[in-house]
Amino acid sequence: MKSRLRLLLVEDEPLIRVALADALERAGYPTIESGSGQDAISQLELASFAAVVTDIRLGVGLSGWDVARFARQQHPRIAVVYMTGDSAFDWASEGVPTSVMVQKPFAIAQMITAVSSLLISAAPF
Amino acid sequence: MKSRLRLLLVEDEPLIRVALADALERAGYPTIESGSGQDAISQLELASFAAVVTDIRLGVGLSGWDVARFARQQHPRIAVVYMTGDSAFDWASEGVPTSVMVQKPFAIAQMITAVSSLLISAAPF
Amino acid sequence: MKSRLRLLLVEDEPLIRVALADALERAGYPTIESGSGQDAISQLELASFAAVVTDIRLGVGLSGWDVARFARQQHPRIAVVYMTGDSAFDWASEGVPTSVMVQKPFAIAQMITAVSSLLISAAPF
Amino acid sequence: MKSRLRLLLVEDEPLIRVALADALERAGYPTIESGSGQDAISQLELASFAAVVTDIRLGVGLSGWDVARFARQQHPRIAVVYMTGDSAFDWASEGVPTSVMVQKPFAIAQMITAVSSLLISAAPF
Amino acid sequence: MKSRLRLLLVEDEPLIRVALADALERAGYPTIESGSGQDAISQLELASFAAVVTDIRLGVGLSGWDVARFARQQHPRIAVVYMTGDSAFDWASEGVPTSVMVQKPFAIAQMITAVSSLLISAAPF
Amino acid sequence: MKSRLRLLLVEDEPLIRVALADALERAGYPTIESGSGQDAISQLELASFAAVVTDIRLGVGLSGWDVARFARQQHPRIAVVYMTGDSAFDWASEGVPTSVMVQKPFAIAQMITAVSSLLISAAPF
Repeated sequence: MKSRLRLLLVEDEPLIRVALADALERAGYPTIESGSGQDAISQLELASFAAVVTDIRLGVGLSGWDVARFARQQHPRIAVVYMTGDSAFDWASEGVPTSVMVQKPFAIAQMITAVSSLLISAAPF
Repeated sequence: MKSRLRLLLVEDEPLIRVALADALERAGYPTIESGSGQDAISQLELASFAAVVTDIRLGVGLSGWDVARFARQQHPRIAVVYMTGDSAFDWASEGVPTSVMVQKPFAIAQMITAVSSLLISAAPF
Repeated sequence: MKSRLRLLLVEDEPLIRVALADALERAGYPTIESGSGQDAISQLELASFAAVVTDIRLGVGLSGWDVARFARQQHPRIAVVYMTGDSAFDWASEGVPTSVMVQKPFAIAQMITAVSSLLISAAPF
Repeated sequence: MKSRLRLLLVEDEPLIRVALADALERAGYPTIESGSGQDAISQLELASFAAVVTDIRLGVGLSGWDVARFARQQHPRIAVVYMTGDSAFDWASEGVPTSVMVQKPFAIAQMITAVSSLLISAAPF
Repeated sequence: MKSRLRLLLVEDEPLIRVALADALERAGYPTIESGSGQDAISQLELASFAAVVTDIRLGVGLSGWDVARFARQQHPRIAVVYMTGDSAFDWASEGVPTSVMVQKPFAIAQMITAVSSLLISAAPF
Repeated sequence: MKSRLRLLLVEDEPLIRVALADALERAGYPTIESGSGQDAISQLELASFAAVVTDIRLGVGLSGWDVARFARQQHPRIAVVYMTGDSAFDWASEGVPTSVMVQKPFAIAQMITAVSSLLISAAPF
């Protein structure tokens, strides 16, 4: 039941990750942190999440595009928010349907609204 | 004029109701609390509200479905947010148009975003 | 499989019903006609439909509001289009979520677009 | 009542205007033709319309931007579709809210869908 | 300029492809037919299109998912409509953002409305 | 890069302006304050903004309608939120496309959600 709210936050920069997790928790979302694409995949295999918030560039290995695609294969209705400091140009070809791209730097309110709106607009059954 | 913002919160669990009213007030929404369907109907007859946020199960008597239908008969443009801890399956047949269903437990940010988005998207005249 | 497209058209005026069924068929939608609320309920119990297009006033007995609520109890994702020659005022309290109200007289293109848009925007799984 | 469907088509090129009026009529929309901005204003003062479909450049005098603004002053909920063969860049600053810009050349189906979608999404009361 | 309307239709079943191309042309969309994923890629390299309408299963080689991703790499704003006779389950992980999935069999009006709505809602500049 | 978040807040009442700027800053949006239409135009000429939040009545001289139109001429994708204590009736004819009208008094959460939603729904490239 708790999984209705739980977010998976995937970001390889620890300082950004901790600050963002703190803001999401204060908004009411239990947040699990993940520092790499491979770790994110493991988390998605272990547990169920309402949303995944992922950076695109995650160092060597899997990217945020890969993480989101895997998350949707596991849970087709999971909400997806991408973050990037680069051009968001690739979103049109690499993103999944009904996802949101938020460009860094972003306001905390933007991220909270993105996550909340996606969870609200998902069909409730 | 104040009625443009005033919310009617209908919830029979006092602890949940008080906590939620507090969060809605802090977000800037003057909130009137109601503990039963019958009381909610009386409030809707007495005053004008921008939105009604209602639990589905309200103990004996009227349900949240009944409260929302009555609210819309009085004010066809009133925003409606339902809350439920059960399956949200009945929303498709029992809910009113352009309403939102939020499943318990929910993040406070989800509720604030639901109310705010409905009030924004309502035609301004 | 065929049920993905099949429409149930509920209208007690035979001339309007036949003309509208003809237009919907030409747009590519296999259409079953029903002349009363009670008959519509029977059809919905017998078979599966992608959408129900229903007049509000159906003579004595069940109304279009009743038909749509029953349809959604059977199939929570069924598309719903209401038609009315009266004021559409009651839709806000009597309609079901994500339904469309089309006021008579309407252009055939309006009805075809209403049905098609609802079927497209329904989640594909 | 008929005005719920009636369109005002404003286009100074007679051949385009006649062909487009014909297509809109076949889709079920009674269409009044207007060949200039000044004539369109006169039509809008005389009668009520569900939608105005207007070219931007209308020769000397009033533009399509002017026509749409006047139409909305008269009827705040009138649907507005602009057509242009130029860059649509000015729409962001000169268009009215909830309007649609269709670039020439366009498919007839695009125009019919634009008009129909706007009329459907307008609140029914 | 013509490319604002031109569609690329990718379908390996010749009978379905010819019938669908005919319907799209009658709706006003100049349509280029392609019978395989590899041919579709070549067409997308040669010319500019407003939309790609593609079957998912295209025999051996590239799938419709591949075609759409390539199309978006070339033209980030190109409209994408997928068709499938299988479960549409994979769309959530394999589709591109703001695309539409239409399940076979579909009504011609559904496809025309899907293409037209996507072209209308694309930002006009 | 910072301009992706920066808001221009145009309000001639200093007390309201300061309180609102403070709330927007706390939500994470760097906010530049402007006390008149003429000053707002100067700010828009000097720098780039993600959004403009403007009162309609700005004393003598330019109105909020003028400010928003100028902002869109400079930056066609800039988000626009209007505020008014009067009837919002004029928005239909005087507002710009994809803008939001928020009526005073409003909850802070409404303004934050309006700004955040507009920035999220803007195409990311």
